[in-house]
Amino acid sequence: MSLIVTGSISIDTIDTPTGSVQEVVGGSSIYFTAAASFFGPIRLVGAVGEDFPDSFVDVFHGFGVDVEGLERRVGSKTFRWHGRYHEDVNQRDTVSVELNVLTEALPPIPKSYEDSGYIFLAVTHPENQLKLLDAFPKRKLVVADTIDLYITTTRDELMEVFKRIDGLIINDSEALMLTGEPNAVVAADKLLEMGPKFVIVKKGQHGAILRHPDGTCVLPAYPAKTVIDPTGAGDSFAGAFMAHLANTDDTSFNSLKTAMAYGTTVASFTIEAFSVERLQQIKRADIDQRFDEFTAMLKIDH
Amino acid sequence: MSLIVTGSISIDTIDTPTGSVQEVVGGSSIYFTAAASFFGPIRLVGAVGEDFPDSFVDVFHGFGVDVEGLERRVGSKTFRWHGRYHEDVNQRDTVSVELNVLTEALPPIPKSYEDSGYIFLAVTHPENQLKLLDAFPKRKLVVADTIDLYITTTRDELMEVFKRIDGLIINDSEALMLTGEPNAVVAADKLLEMGPKFVIVKKGQHGAILRHPDGTCVLPAYPAKTVIDPTGAGDSFAGAFMAHLANTDDTSFNSLKTAMAYGTTVASFTIEAFSVERLQQIKRADIDQRFDEFTAMLKIDH
Repeated sequence: MSLIVTGSISIDTIDTPTGSVQEVVGGSSIYFTAAASFFGPIRLVGAVGEDFPDSFVDVFHGFGVDVEGLERRVGSKTFRWHGRYHEDVNQRDTVSVELNVLTEALPPIPKSYEDSGYIFLAVTHPENQLKLLDAFPKRKLVVADTIDLYITTTRDELMEVFKRIDGLIINDSEALMLTGEPNAVVAADKLLEMGPKFVIVKKGQHGAILRHPDGTCVLPAYPAKTVIDPTGAGDSFAGAFMAHLANTDDTSFNSLKTAMAYGTTVASFTIEAFSVERLQQIKRADIDQRFDEFTAMLKIDH
Repeated sequence: MSLIVTGSISIDTIDTPTGSVQEVVGGSSIYFTAAASFFGPIRLVGAVGEDFPDSFVDVFHGFGVDVEGLERRVGSKTFRWHGRYHEDVNQRDTVSVELNVLTEALPPIPKSYEDSGYIFLAVTHPENQLKLLDAFPKRKLVVADTIDLYITTTRDELMEVFKRIDGLIINDSEALMLTGEPNAVVAADKLLEMGPKFVIVKKGQHGAILRHPDGTCVLPAYPAKTVIDPTGAGDSFAGAFMAHLANTDDTSFNSLKTAMAYGTTVASFTIEAFSVERLQQIKRADIDQRFDEFTAMLKIDH
């Protein structure tokens, strides 16, 4: 079934211990859609400003993303983010952020998107997440993400979102913020009580854990030797995860586990270069090869 | 083949956010041997002082440990450690430490131990590790551990140890200290260049990674909901790991992977109570049940 994502699109400047890039395409949507594109069709709803370069739209085109829902808004400016990673690339600071068009109304959802079955509500205001959810009456699986800003400022609205979604994919730091619980397993269980039918807590370089009524799945990250830029790893994880589910139209616990392994695999490519450069270089066969290698690492003889 | 461990035996006082214990049996040897005892016979070489309570020797007896190599030394005092865990139980401070008998000569190795094939050199002075290694002419697999103290003060001797062992099991913080490399995979590869044929980097709550000429294995920790006291988790991991290898007499890469999963499983019990209390309560069937549950979590459908 069709997969749609609504998330941020940004112009990023990124400093890491090994190098820097200025004004590259970023935001959850590009990482999500690029990752998803290896598995099947992917639709995008999002707004950018009139400063958004054509070449960045071409990046979406290059991944075959359906950009009918991408609005370039006259008079608005694109969301911009400048991040700086520490010597330990698992730590970063935000040097500057300009929300710009992200604070404005959502773009209209194209008529052709209304039959979307798999919906990923990437980070945005919970009220917008609720509006988006209602825009897809044929939804089969809705999964959401959020960040500290909305946990702090719009907790009540977020709780409404949690009651209406099937799955939540969230960082460990945000899971702790929401539940007060540092243990990821216990935090995930507390989040389940808030509404979602399953919860995935992402732990960055340390992998991810899924709690689901049918069981638990805990996966390490792929043992990457080269980490150039971790930006977008979590969004790539979510993109490949959702796309595997949509492509197979199977939301069973075992399918979620396989989807997590695909998410882990694609994220391991994302971090090998800045922006989506590495994802532009690889093919589905590269993903499958690393997926096989990764899942073999986890296979334990009895 | 027979498994032997030479490590510390201590009287521990431990404070955690959920409780405290005073003067319980501790040290790498008790955690290692208790974990190993579920898989086959286990021999111990180590010294304690005359203050070491009979009831602590009974703990070793209770696990069926061969304590012919345990020397209670008249005029000496047992190694003592007082640790305090933070609210985040993955962080701890040493409140006090008295090395006592640990600074003295090694106990004699019983004649009956000389045919030991699987040797674990738990944390001690590298010169002692070398002496112990030479004491077992029929050794088939020698694995060592070390800590920051010996990395800092006896690095040359440690490098001699590394050249003569088959495997190294080490914490991520010590791998970083030895190699200057924060990435566990790259650090493990640098450690391989120092001599060991395989290296396992332990990442505490985040699992462990094995680098071996035949491949890589990366395992998360078991997703524990209850962590009462993490003391001894790494030693329990090593004990079950070595005991599985010795019991099957199989040192292939696939056997090492299975051994890591057993190590992870037994460590997950250790942390559920203070000292070795939890290991005193369980049977091999409990370990096998959790092992099956854990390895099923890691099994990914294609």
